[in-house]
Amino acid sequence: MPNDSSRPTSACPISYALEIFGDRWTLLVLRDLMLKECQRYGELLASPEGIATNVLADRLKRLEQRGLISKRKDPLDARQIIYSPTDAAIALVPMLLEMIAWSAQHGGNKFETKMAKRFRANRDKCIADVQKSIRARRAKS
Amino acid sequence: MPNDSSRPTSACPISYALEIFGDRWTLLVLRDLMLKECQRYGELLASPEGIATNVLADRLKRLEQRGLISKRKDPLDARQIIYSPTDAAIALVPMLLEMIAWSAQHGGNKFETKMAKRFRANRDKCIADVQKSIRARRAKS
Repeated sequence: MPNDSSRPTSACPISYALEIFGDRWTLLVLRDLMLKECQRYGELLASPEGIATNVLADRLKRLEQRGLISKRKDPLDARQIIYSPTDAAIALVPMLLEMIAWSAQHGGNKFETKMAKRFRANRDKCIADVQKSIRARRAKS
Repeated sequence: MPNDSSRPTSACPISYALEIFGDRWTLLVLRDLMLKECQRYGELLASPEGIATNVLADRLKRLEQRGLISKRKDPLDARQIIYSPTDAAIALVPMLLEMIAWSAQHGGNKFETKMAKRFRANRDKCIADVQKSIRARRAKS
């Protein structure tokens, strides 16, 4: 991304995946929605990487168009939108956790996080637990 | 990427990983070097996604600076460079295979490739086999 829609879609599954979420900001937004419990525009904007408002708005729009997030009005404040990951987004958790594991292994000690340890100790359980907690939060919100 | 080196590195392992390989072209180059048996500039340039020469040259330079590829002269033709993935790049195979699995699940039948089936049937064996064949090719070339 940005995806030029005049370009024919590649037959390669990696290329397809990258057309949908293959840019840094898109994946940081997905991280925030799934692993950091962000749900609102302002929460996403406050992330430490400093996403610009126009970039955030663009990525949220694309993520919705591609079926990775859904949005609805906050029942507590109708001026606010709540963004939720769809099942297709939650299916990206294994890939995000692989990134965490890679950084723990290749980026030095500071990335040796609790999540990296949990993932290494029991990959399947870690993925299932993380996905379950995202779904629980989605159902509650 | 492109990474602005004046920006402080995030403490988040996902952000760190994305600073290194979080753009579409970088991951397509890694795909070609590891899963498509490309080794030379011309082979990488011929990929169906149509990478531009300046983008390819930039990504190869960054990948080398970040320790994900090494390069040397082709013993058969000293004007040619051979690019090889480092162990840090080969450690990204699980993440690339997760992308393949995700596309098979969410991108429709056309992405239901042999590799996706192998990965789903036995993830650990599939990763080990792919990494082994990359290492064997690297040793031989």
